[in-house]
Amino acid sequence: MNDPFRETDDEARDLAQTLLLSARYGALAVSDQGVPFVSRIALVTERGMMPMTLISDLAHHTTCLRTTPHASLLIGDVPDKGDPLVHPRMTLKIRAEFVEKDEVLLDRYLFKQPKAKLYARFADFNLVRLTPEGAILNGGFGKAYKLSREDLLAPSL
Amino acid sequence: MNDPFRETDDEARDLAQTLLLSARYGALAVSDQGVPFVSRIALVTERGMMPMTLISDLAHHTTCLRTTPHASLLIGDVPDKGDPLVHPRMTLKIRAEFVEKDEVLLDRYLFKQPKAKLYARFADFNLVRLTPEGAILNGGFGKAYKLSREDLLAPSL
Repeated sequence: MNDPFRETDDEARDLAQTLLLSARYGALAVSDQGVPFVSRIALVTERGMMPMTLISDLAHHTTCLRTTPHASLLIGDVPDKGDPLVHPRMTLKIRAEFVEKDEVLLDRYLFKQPKAKLYARFADFNLVRLTPEGAILNGGFGKAYKLSREDLLAPSL
Repeated sequence: MNDPFRETDDEARDLAQTLLLSARYGALAVSDQGVPFVSRIALVTERGMMPMTLISDLAHHTTCLRTTPHASLLIGDVPDKGDPLVHPRMTLKIRAEFVEKDEVLLDRYLFKQPKAKLYARFADFNLVRLTPEGAILNGGFGKAYKLSREDLLAPSL
């Protein structure tokens, strides 16, 4: 079988970082005792920081992440029209970490996800850091790249 | 902890079936030796049939599904504007089955995914049936339902 991946270059790194910084939601796949379970989460990534999400204790993904922090995250919007497979998207290998919900982090999250103000301070909502350990970037048909953690968190991010 | 699920009613079943019939793509989470891996796939569901996808041997999800057919599929579009968490989406528990790429099935697939004509008949593209075994439907904040296989494949579908 041919290797489907192109050599990772600055264009791929730029696209990956643009996807990360612009993503407001993603599909998070967690391990439910070894079986995958995927659901939609809201998220925020700021320059120089890891992606963060705010998830409820009532959600199944939260229960699964507490047991198994290794997860997979798909980002990249699909515009209302056109072929969904030509639009760039990225699969991130993730390690999730529940962090203290301090006001500084929460404010940064809510600045980009203002609708979450309604519930962000409820005790059963958790701020979770999603640290990327690597990624597969798909820039459209036949344009796939493998990215390291360093590619994703390059100085420009 | 409170049970976050409402009682499944006809409105929930109708929404689930509408999501299935209108989905043109989804986030497929497969098991990569027990670790989740999520990526975007194109798909088609017709009334009275299971969802189908067309995936390449070059794609990592294909390799994983050949080993472990149990997967999870997230469907439900996110419009360009607004809060991504208020729009309906559904997580399906899936069993994947590689089926013969006969012309009848392929024509039905390509009718709704005409862009796939470019590669559908390549030998390394596989038609895969994604049989739903159950689902969690999220109709917006606080509107969650559990659905059985029978709920998903009710007579109207």
